[in-house]
Amino acid sequence: MTESPTRPYNFSAGPAAMPVEVLQQAAAEMLDWHGSGMGVMEMSHRGKAFMSICEAAERDLRDLLAVPDSFRILFMQGGGLAENAIVPLNLSRGGTLDFVVTGSWSQKSAKEARKYATVHMAASNESDHHTALPNPASWQLSKDAQYVHLCSNETIHGVEFHELPDLKALGCDAPLVIDFSSHVASRPVDWARVGLAFGGAQKNLGPAGLTLVVVREDLLGHALAVCPSAFNYQTVADNASMYNTPPTYAIYMAGLTFQWLKRQTEGRATGLAAMERRNAAKAALLYDYIDGSQLYLNRVAKNCRSRMNIPFFLRDESRNDAFLAGAQDVGLLQLKGHKSVGGMRASIYNAMPIEGVQALVSYMHQFEKKQA
Amino acid sequence: MTESPTRPYNFSAGPAAMPVEVLQQAAAEMLDWHGSGMGVMEMSHRGKAFMSICEAAERDLRDLLAVPDSFRILFMQGGGLAENAIVPLNLSRGGTLDFVVTGSWSQKSAKEARKYATVHMAASNESDHHTALPNPASWQLSKDAQYVHLCSNETIHGVEFHELPDLKALGCDAPLVIDFSSHVASRPVDWARVGLAFGGAQKNLGPAGLTLVVVREDLLGHALAVCPSAFNYQTVADNASMYNTPPTYAIYMAGLTFQWLKRQTEGRATGLAAMERRNAAKAALLYDYIDGSQLYLNRVAKNCRSRMNIPFFLRDESRNDAFLAGAQDVGLLQLKGHKSVGGMRASIYNAMPIEGVQALVSYMHQFEKKQA
Repeated sequence: MTESPTRPYNFSAGPAAMPVEVLQQAAAEMLDWHGSGMGVMEMSHRGKAFMSICEAAERDLRDLLAVPDSFRILFMQGGGLAENAIVPLNLSRGGTLDFVVTGSWSQKSAKEARKYATVHMAASNESDHHTALPNPASWQLSKDAQYVHLCSNETIHGVEFHELPDLKALGCDAPLVIDFSSHVASRPVDWARVGLAFGGAQKNLGPAGLTLVVVREDLLGHALAVCPSAFNYQTVADNASMYNTPPTYAIYMAGLTFQWLKRQTEGRATGLAAMERRNAAKAALLYDYIDGSQLYLNRVAKNCRSRMNIPFFLRDESRNDAFLAGAQDVGLLQLKGHKSVGGMRASIYNAMPIEGVQALVSYMHQFEKKQA
Repeated sequence: MTESPTRPYNFSAGPAAMPVEVLQQAAAEMLDWHGSGMGVMEMSHRGKAFMSICEAAERDLRDLLAVPDSFRILFMQGGGLAENAIVPLNLSRGGTLDFVVTGSWSQKSAKEARKYATVHMAASNESDHHTALPNPASWQLSKDAQYVHLCSNETIHGVEFHELPDLKALGCDAPLVIDFSSHVASRPVDWARVGLAFGGAQKNLGPAGLTLVVVREDLLGHALAVCPSAFNYQTVADNASMYNTPPTYAIYMAGLTFQWLKRQTEGRATGLAAMERRNAAKAALLYDYIDGSQLYLNRVAKNCRSRMNIPFFLRDESRNDAFLAGAQDVGLLQLKGHKSVGGMRASIYNAMPIEGVQALVSYMHQFEKKQA
């Protein structure tokens, strides 16, 4: 690899780049956390030291995401794919569930939910090849749904809800469940419209192996009898995420990331407001370049393009390997698109600085010129 | 804390002390693994770099534990408590299960299994307050059990099977399921007697958040319809533990630990044979001291005392707090017993050197003298 004056820029969709400051602090504290004589990995989860780490992480996350008091924050395991079962195990009551399918992830969620409940497809953008969002006014919502599920940012197809639907305004009283794995903490959440949000940590919060669930308290306590105790939201909530041994180190790393996020500023904005501005600017830079180029293409409708995951294609796909090899040579890593769609994908989560997107655009421009 | 010439000795039952060399290597590689320009936490689980880490971890573990080719190694999430549901979801076929209860953990396993199958108590040492192992010849095994479950080392009660039962010799054809969370990798496993073994990593293998399952291939493929896909052993095996995003950093840390274990020697013994000798010597040192003292007491029968978790009590329990505070002062950490049994507990897993046990015995001796 050509030597780069900076650390390479890592565009992985997840597990993904983490803030350098967070990694440096973790390395420095690996053998001894705050003079305790133990690394964080070595602490009993029920000891004072780790309890303080876990409580701070939860408090900082609540503050950062402005989670109302009526919601519980749960630290779980298994990622989004496990939650595809755990959510209906806890919330479906074996009834009917409405799904809005806008890409691979919501599709997988709907498929898994069929094990536990009757799944009704309220809307789908499959006929558009997952490039547009069906207008909420057109959704066929059930009268008796236990909840409505959507994926608020589709990591593979690069489709994002820039505004969550107001189900009440659509005449629907069911709670909204969102899979926000790949854009959590990239922008504020409108909790008034949400009943439950879940996400794997490995995109924007920390290492793989930690799952975040934020759930309105009144939705707890209705798990099916076959729900494993370790995945029963009520049990997890009653035990402050310590019913089973939590993924302690992942919680610690997420906690450091929350502190890093709280320190970020952009103009007068701080925290998630700062991140939202920064993420909007990063995404605009890349989309504008793609739209103005002759070589690159993004097919997603402009009103729902993801700010986090930007899939793009070379009009001449025979150049894909050359594009990726050249990118690697200049320190632009993990740009290969998901195998199910091909092409390229730039995931530009919170930890990606604008300089990384500038470097990518600059490389894309050079590569395009060479092809001409 | 009084300054100690060495790192403090950490007797936590789990998450627990890890080998210093492993922590040092992890700290050194935190921002850049082998010149890849990425830390391990930041790697796509499907990229070449992480795939090589994961494959090496599995290979080293198979080598270390001498796992036969007829068994699959699965890296999962949720810990032992989740497996209490996941095992019957996969293996019970809704039939009858035999449980041998020898302490808190096997008790919890039996309770959770009732959600999915008919649980038959084949044996229990409850009347002995979990201080002795019921003789396998006395077990009331069912004729039609789908499997027989036992916990081969009870972390809280300090009771260990030093030999696994030979179910075939007892006239039972059902596979044996063992929860080996708290003594995995401390000694060889007699795989000829085992159908499935599971354990959380956070005691003897690595950080919390990783669960190891070793399962005989013919037991795959019988999951109940309500088993979440992410916890279906067949699905996990078919996808080489990558159906959902695995806890990548925990797998990396466990992999470093496996390499450390393979490097260990004791006389001519290497790997687990070396660890077994060392662990037997460490345990003997502590039990011999306890048995010879006037102040300390361990109630477990000698033929089933755990080499990993040694609970002990002060005959004068009013001195408990003074004992713990004094221990902390000389760098002996996390000796408090589990809240359900009280007293003290020294967990002396692989990462605890004999010097740590010597330091503990020396402190116990000083403390006893002061009381006299």
